[in-house]
Amino acid sequence: MQYEEVQGGICAPLGFRAAGVACGLKPSGALDLCMIAADRLCAAAGTFTRNAFKAAPIKVTMENLRDGRLQAIVANSGNANAWTGEKGVEDARAMASLAALELGLKEGDVGVASTGIIGSYLDMSRVGRGIRDAVAALSSEGSDRAAEAIMTTDTFPKSYAVDVGGYRVGGIAKGAGMIRPDMATMLAFLTTDAEVAPELLAVCLRHAVDRTFNRITVDGCMSTNDTVLVMASGLSGETPDAGGLEKALEKVCSRLARLIVSDGEGATRIITVRVRGAASAEEAAAAARAVAESVLVKTAFFGGDPNWGRVVQALGAAVPELQAAGVRVSIGGIVVAAGGEPVETEEEELERVMSGREIELMIHLGRGEFDTEVWTCDLGYEYVRINAEYHT
Amino acid sequence: MQYEEVQGGICAPLGFRAAGVACGLKPSGALDLCMIAADRLCAAAGTFTRNAFKAAPIKVTMENLRDGRLQAIVANSGNANAWTGEKGVEDARAMASLAALELGLKEGDVGVASTGIIGSYLDMSRVGRGIRDAVAALSSEGSDRAAEAIMTTDTFPKSYAVDVGGYRVGGIAKGAGMIRPDMATMLAFLTTDAEVAPELLAVCLRHAVDRTFNRITVDGCMSTNDTVLVMASGLSGETPDAGGLEKALEKVCSRLARLIVSDGEGATRIITVRVRGAASAEEAAAAARAVAESVLVKTAFFGGDPNWGRVVQALGAAVPELQAAGVRVSIGGIVVAAGGEPVETEEEELERVMSGREIELMIHLGRGEFDTEVWTCDLGYEYVRINAEYHT
Repeated sequence: MQYEEVQGGICAPLGFRAAGVACGLKPSGALDLCMIAADRLCAAAGTFTRNAFKAAPIKVTMENLRDGRLQAIVANSGNANAWTGEKGVEDARAMASLAALELGLKEGDVGVASTGIIGSYLDMSRVGRGIRDAVAALSSEGSDRAAEAIMTTDTFPKSYAVDVGGYRVGGIAKGAGMIRPDMATMLAFLTTDAEVAPELLAVCLRHAVDRTFNRITVDGCMSTNDTVLVMASGLSGETPDAGGLEKALEKVCSRLARLIVSDGEGATRIITVRVRGAASAEEAAAAARAVAESVLVKTAFFGGDPNWGRVVQALGAAVPELQAAGVRVSIGGIVVAAGGEPVETEEEELERVMSGREIELMIHLGRGEFDTEVWTCDLGYEYVRINAEYHT
Repeated sequence: MQYEEVQGGICAPLGFRAAGVACGLKPSGALDLCMIAADRLCAAAGTFTRNAFKAAPIKVTMENLRDGRLQAIVANSGNANAWTGEKGVEDARAMASLAALELGLKEGDVGVASTGIIGSYLDMSRVGRGIRDAVAALSSEGSDRAAEAIMTTDTFPKSYAVDVGGYRVGGIAKGAGMIRPDMATMLAFLTTDAEVAPELLAVCLRHAVDRTFNRITVDGCMSTNDTVLVMASGLSGETPDAGGLEKALEKVCSRLARLIVSDGEGATRIITVRVRGAASAEEAAAAARAVAESVLVKTAFFGGDPNWGRVVQALGAAVPELQAAGVRVSIGGIVVAAGGEPVETEEEELERVMSGREIELMIHLGRGEFDTEVWTCDLGYEYVRINAEYHT
């Protein structure tokens, strides 16, 4: 696929304006209310967390998406509106209807998302003021502020957009902690000016998410609020085929997912865990997840230690059927363990690999034809600091 | 059961001597070779890790245990002899046969265990010297040094013994990191002077381990080397029934398991996660494990934060069938969340609970009759320091 990176984030495609404002949900006074509005009713689709305790805004957004159409998204940070019962659902619905009122839309045309602390009710007077301010601030230059307004412990806003010849796809995302999508553990909002039916958009989004956001993990914790939404305005007049649209969405989701991992709480390294030769897709996923989510592996990588013993420990615990004879582990292309025995390596070469910001861990299981990969980050003091001090 | 704590550890029961010596496997010069020898051939049983990549000493010990008899145990720290292929198995066998030679026994009467770094070959000349020194040092006062010789990142040796009226049970253990038994992730050696057949001893040990070592988790990582061994000398002349022996073993294992959790790498708090009302035993275990192994929960508890939002997040991710309406979470007896909504609490009361060294987290799932509990610790800076600096 030919594509070109372009500026403008979610406002790069035709027909979208965005805004980010501060309404006081974050005690710091930082931006905490994000609005995205389209010039016309869009085909829309979403993927959501599989956590049993889906946050209130997810319940409302799933309802509003039933007809495959949205024209706006309103999202807040600082409060997840999760585990907040019926009142939480009423508040999420009120967010949609307030935004609809200000924008001249129907409540069912607005998607809602929240991120932040679990188990606190939203301060709806602040949210209401934020929605009014955000609608007033909507602009085609608003993507960066919208991206900033969904940040929690993120250290930088995440945004990306591409032109794929004839139409564009843009996106913003937030991540940082509680990251183990399945589907995702973060918020991401995508826009495109391609012309596409809601059903096709949903299929393409699902595929793109499976190959990107569902492959990242920061701490193995699947949140209550994870949401990916896409709106397609059709204003480019281009009608891409499924393969093309899927690739374009994947391109943007992939960049955003990598940005989320690189900004994992306290992350100093990005680790790509590739698994080859599993006996099934489930086995490949279990093996990759076990390694990517092992706190022993993650702290070793934080320490710059190519501790492959912890990698084989995690593999053996996750897949009891493994035979050591068939297993091979490489770090940055250097084979360190194979056939149940250590492999002698040049220490300086391994040190060079481990000193990099990006490290590839390749694991051959020798049992079949299934492959996968997972992207994660290391775990250091900063993760502990953030999560011990992020008080309820 | 009437019981009385007694001194002497594994040498408290009649017929056992022990020793701990330094043979140079640990660069620090600390004790690293442990020997336990019985005056006569004992009924013996063991439980072992279910990791696919069982360490070499486990393979040898499982063979030697086939006849349900052992007369000695030799164990080293500083090197796990895991992922060391055929040579590793030969080395483990050599440990047994060297110990047998020095003690005047058969190779098959000796159990072997190792703990430490994965993927390095043992220095057998050091191990050989250690075995000779240890046999020379065997004494009925040797339990404490034996316990010290199996330590890795443990900060204190773990030992306990009880008199249950007529016979005694003693034990030593090591833990600290890579702790997620299933069966256990540590070494524990138990002795008793009860008279018992090997088959019954194996059943009682399995039950005791299931209710103790298999309920602890430090970091969710099931090691390649986890081993629990018990030897029964019969020298007390007492022949307990299954129920009595099981309870006596459980008493000692329970204390050792709690000591392991309290000495989890960098642990400042012990957390007991109780699950009630699960729809199945598997569901109860999945829910308890998910909470006890959540790094978000563990870092919150390190920070003294009663962040129950992370508890419900972990529950909802682990058991997608849960209904918020039936779920209730209490911390130290204070209900903090119920029926999908937060419960108002006295902040000072919660702070008092969270400031304790031991914290109980009670979770009702409202789905059935199955219960379980898991013991874990918090996760702080020290865990990261130890595991980033514990170099291969």
